[in-house]
Amino acid sequence: METLESIGTPALVLDRSVMAANIATMRDRVRELGVALRPHVKTAKSIDVIRRMLSGRPGGVTVSTLAEAEYCVEHGITDVLYAVGIVPAKLDRVARIGARGATITVITDSVVGARAVAARAGEWGLRFPVMIEIDSDGHRAGLEPGDPAVVEIGRLLRDESGVEPAGVMTHAGGSYGARTAEAITDAAEQERAAVVGVAERLRAAGVPCPVVSVGSTPTATRARDLTGVTEVRVGVYVFQDLVMAGLGVCEIGDIALSVLCSVIGHRRDGRMLVDAGWTALSRDRGTASQPVDQGYGLVCDLAGRPIPELIVAETNQEHGIVADRYGRRINPEHFPLGRRLRVLPNHACATATMHGRYHVVDGTAAVVEVWTRVGGW
Amino acid sequence: METLESIGTPALVLDRSVMAANIATMRDRVRELGVALRPHVKTAKSIDVIRRMLSGRPGGVTVSTLAEAEYCVEHGITDVLYAVGIVPAKLDRVARIGARGATITVITDSVVGARAVAARAGEWGLRFPVMIEIDSDGHRAGLEPGDPAVVEIGRLLRDESGVEPAGVMTHAGGSYGARTAEAITDAAEQERAAVVGVAERLRAAGVPCPVVSVGSTPTATRARDLTGVTEVRVGVYVFQDLVMAGLGVCEIGDIALSVLCSVIGHRRDGRMLVDAGWTALSRDRGTASQPVDQGYGLVCDLAGRPIPELIVAETNQEHGIVADRYGRRINPEHFPLGRRLRVLPNHACATATMHGRYHVVDGTAAVVEVWTRVGGW
Repeated sequence: METLESIGTPALVLDRSVMAANIATMRDRVRELGVALRPHVKTAKSIDVIRRMLSGRPGGVTVSTLAEAEYCVEHGITDVLYAVGIVPAKLDRVARIGARGATITVITDSVVGARAVAARAGEWGLRFPVMIEIDSDGHRAGLEPGDPAVVEIGRLLRDESGVEPAGVMTHAGGSYGARTAEAITDAAEQERAAVVGVAERLRAAGVPCPVVSVGSTPTATRARDLTGVTEVRVGVYVFQDLVMAGLGVCEIGDIALSVLCSVIGHRRDGRMLVDAGWTALSRDRGTASQPVDQGYGLVCDLAGRPIPELIVAETNQEHGIVADRYGRRINPEHFPLGRRLRVLPNHACATATMHGRYHVVDGTAAVVEVWTRVGGW
Repeated sequence: METLESIGTPALVLDRSVMAANIATMRDRVRELGVALRPHVKTAKSIDVIRRMLSGRPGGVTVSTLAEAEYCVEHGITDVLYAVGIVPAKLDRVARIGARGATITVITDSVVGARAVAARAGEWGLRFPVMIEIDSDGHRAGLEPGDPAVVEIGRLLRDESGVEPAGVMTHAGGSYGARTAEAITDAAEQERAAVVGVAERLRAAGVPCPVVSVGSTPTATRARDLTGVTEVRVGVYVFQDLVMAGLGVCEIGDIALSVLCSVIGHRRDGRMLVDAGWTALSRDRGTASQPVDQGYGLVCDLAGRPIPELIVAETNQEHGIVADRYGRRINPEHFPLGRRLRVLPNHACATATMHGRYHVVDGTAAVVEVWTRVGGW
């Protein structure tokens, strides 16, 4: 059997027990909030992980690419929300996925978008479920909750033959910038209030709004109440990462993902080199703006125990430069050439994207399974 | 035939005429300097590009991963320099690649590393060519030129049966931080002087030093003289990028690589959304520290003509937020939903790594070829 001592480095490592605990925590949390869980596939991109996120239920998923949608449908999932604003050129591919027996819901935040979907689907004699995307915090895409276009789009979705109103959705991406648990709870309430208010306006205008969807790991973790919401979309929670730990959403010990690497040299300035550069760790610097900057990742020993003073301070393509965060020299005798270490990621989605597979462990160095990921678009 | 209007977005686009001009410029430049060219494969990772970089000669290449080494040897290349410090655990794979009829040269910057290679190869009855890595500018790995360990390693490589001294090499990575053409020329001279001095010391100590290798696109472009150097390793020049343009090493018009994307929405703050997030562009922010910060990339029209005021200001996983760099509102009528754009990358290596293939064009929207890339390690 392969072990973390025998496989090539760098390599992506996933501890399935840690992941299972994260899955159970979020499942209980969402149940407590009285809403459905629609896991986001974009973090894991692996059916072995997705099935566990669904806890064996048939359930729906959220995707960020049509490649993820196709992959999920190929693996038997029949309810997919494609949560990136749709453009007409992608509809034929959406239709082909739908023709395989799956419901693919698309999203839009403009009248022109809704009209384009309706026109195209109408030509084909199809009907697409469409959700209206709401911007609850100025973070990314979506209509402002009070925008009159919301009701205009809703009526169009109700009245045109090629579409049907599937509900409203938002993503509180701004919660990643929160500094306190209180601020995340406030972001959760803002996220909830934005879509619930829109849903009420739509219903008052005679537009059905079956689904009221919110989602981000921080807000799902810290929400006090989700009255009016029907489902939560979350992805990062499955692996957790240093950004989430920095937000207080998890502990460092909850991080299930790490990058295995080897010491490849020592520098005269007391730093050391490992063979995990930005191709293995990603260029994500999500903790740079947090109170504790973890560089490109926090270094752990082979057993996954953090070495709190060591971070990957710099990355080149295939080189990581590990530094003591207090500026002390690293003793080369403690980290001989070839010594294996594990690096916890700033951002699980970004780091996982750099790899084609997970080397699955279960608390020891034995690699018990290898799970592949879907990439591309 | 597929075109830039018909393929799915996001997608990586490579203009082969622009690339051919970059290849010719560097080939002439290196010839003028009187040294050999050993192209670095890490930027392109595609045999279709590598063959063009070699201009049809059999020639040697530089790689940054053993996956690249295997890929090159599979495609008939027989002289490979693996330019990341070797660790003993990787030697069996190096030996297997060598057994296929190729010469794989490895590098080390420590006595312990050299001794480990010698011991392992000796057990197997093999002989590995080993280069000594020199740090010419404090940027990354390597021994200081004056370090007495250099000669110690050289003698070990000369005297042990499992190894042979292949020369010295360095990489002036610090040149990426230069602010003037003069500073890059100075970095080139520092890079040259460091390894030529080491080569002389080795030879004076009776250690053969057949190869004296330097390499970075900025220093190769701006070097005045490479006396004593035998080869140059360069990779980025083949595509060029915004960092190189910011250094004055190329013009914006020399950038052969771009990411095709679609407009997916407009925000109420006058910014717009495209479907190229960090999975398509990478998180590289190489121009952040340059006089002109290009965000996550400079936006061009479908023909590849820059729209100088538009940059990708922010990225999420599958969303790019395009902003006017002077803070003006983008007129949605000029960029309707679905409109296709191309984004020039900060760092060609980082952006290309996010993709599995190049959609090759030749000055028009027709996709004339598709070239695959090798990934992983």
